[in-house]
Amino acid sequence: MVILSKTDQDGASLSSEAIRRRIRTGAHDGHTAGLAAGKLQCNLAILPEAYALDFLRFCQRNPKPCPVVGVGDTGSHMLPTLGRDIDIRSDVPRYRVFKEGALVEEVTDITSHWADDLVTVALGCSFTFENALIRAGIPVRHIEMGRNVPMYRTNIDLVPAGPFGGQMVVTMRPLKADQIDAARAISAKYPQAHGAPIAIGDPAAIGISDLSAPDYGDPVDVKPGEVPVYWACGVTPQNVLKAAKLPICITHAPGHMLITDVAEDAETTIYQDPNQNEKTNKE
Amino acid sequence: MVILSKTDQDGASLSSEAIRRRIRTGAHDGHTAGLAAGKLQCNLAILPEAYALDFLRFCQRNPKPCPVVGVGDTGSHMLPTLGRDIDIRSDVPRYRVFKEGALVEEVTDITSHWADDLVTVALGCSFTFENALIRAGIPVRHIEMGRNVPMYRTNIDLVPAGPFGGQMVVTMRPLKADQIDAARAISAKYPQAHGAPIAIGDPAAIGISDLSAPDYGDPVDVKPGEVPVYWACGVTPQNVLKAAKLPICITHAPGHMLITDVAEDAETTIYQDPNQNEKTNKE
Repeated sequence: MVILSKTDQDGASLSSEAIRRRIRTGAHDGHTAGLAAGKLQCNLAILPEAYALDFLRFCQRNPKPCPVVGVGDTGSHMLPTLGRDIDIRSDVPRYRVFKEGALVEEVTDITSHWADDLVTVALGCSFTFENALIRAGIPVRHIEMGRNVPMYRTNIDLVPAGPFGGQMVVTMRPLKADQIDAARAISAKYPQAHGAPIAIGDPAAIGISDLSAPDYGDPVDVKPGEVPVYWACGVTPQNVLKAAKLPICITHAPGHMLITDVAEDAETTIYQDPNQNEKTNKE
Repeated sequence: MVILSKTDQDGASLSSEAIRRRIRTGAHDGHTAGLAAGKLQCNLAILPEAYALDFLRFCQRNPKPCPVVGVGDTGSHMLPTLGRDIDIRSDVPRYRVFKEGALVEEVTDITSHWADDLVTVALGCSFTFENALIRAGIPVRHIEMGRNVPMYRTNIDLVPAGPFGGQMVVTMRPLKADQIDAARAISAKYPQAHGAPIAIGDPAAIGISDLSAPDYGDPVDVKPGEVPVYWACGVTPQNVLKAAKLPICITHAPGHMLITDVAEDAETTIYQDPNQNEKTNKE
């Protein structure tokens, strides 16, 4: 369940940079759903450089659950390619710190954990295509019900890299049969946010035994005539990181994402400062 | 200029795997344009692991010139994520070997150069969107003229990472004004192959002084009423690698690409063996 505290009721009207400033100062430490509309939000993985090459290889080989949208310099706590003045130590509302695969702490600031060998990897999240579905008139059940999205472990093997591997976690959204083609086409436009569905229909076919008992998040109603549609999920890399039992690894807390300054529908996820970028905006 | 020798006149009808086998045995060491229609072809960069994390960061930050489509394990000469039985030491028709930034050799096999610390990075190439343009009835001038695409250094700064940085190289294709929107939409569908144009129109705006004198490749005619359209180019990472003066770095020779088993229009560039992949094909 998402921990709700100091959630910014007015956040939807604030810019991404203004919200990050409130997060940095502690004025907002709640979830980020619906904040900074139109801006890319990200899953977060911070890990020692010794594992970063393998982790990037792992993400490259599993782009649907692990779409890399930003990578920091080793030891740098700034992420200039995702926005102005992003300090990854303080600009995410809530973090989880893992040691040897065990959760040791949930905190709102990781400055005390920062080290010169840490590398930040930002990964796209499903908020992006959910927003696009809703704009297209396709309702998203867990949002309608005010719940977390249901997430399930599957038997879909990931392509391994170094110590990273395992099976994919998926989210499920029930859709009417005549909405599926449109939902597929819309989500496919966002490869940086899990892209098109991984599977449609029979949960047993991908190793899910009971849709009413998700492994993470909350169950949602699947109404008569609706078909469960499964997308790759950002919990996948979190589980993979935990299973690899790294000496240290830091992620965001579920629902408490990094809000970037990159537009959700930008062709690439690399932030271009409008004041410093005249010559590459010729189109 | 492309070096033409032992070019496979019948190659267009052979499967990607069959062509690689001919390349491996030395039966084909010419360019790969037009071979294995519908299959993704790749630029190649092989470099020591010590530089691989920075190079992947560089590519992530510059996805239009440097779209990563495959990364090998350190020391492994196989590339299973791009196809069946790809041995990167022998399955590219022609390689260039650089030491400290200087070209030392052009060869058809790099087995003697292989080392346990080398990492292979495969990058998308413009063949993919050119094929799509032609299928859509938009002619590509340098192909019509039987020439290499004209390529130009620009003043567009790349986002640096570690020792890698510099300015972007672009290709240019002249189009009629009423073809530009379609060409943009078509190429934007292939983010793994440089995506939408980087710039359109005035060459001086991106630092090109004379369109008739490309820095690489051949000049092409720009007819009255046509507009030059510029795409990010795979020579960019090659120049960046040369400038970084790595102890060793191996690339393909221009036009002599890695032919993969991945479909050009696949949603991701990760090869899935049809015999081993039943459960992820539920869609």
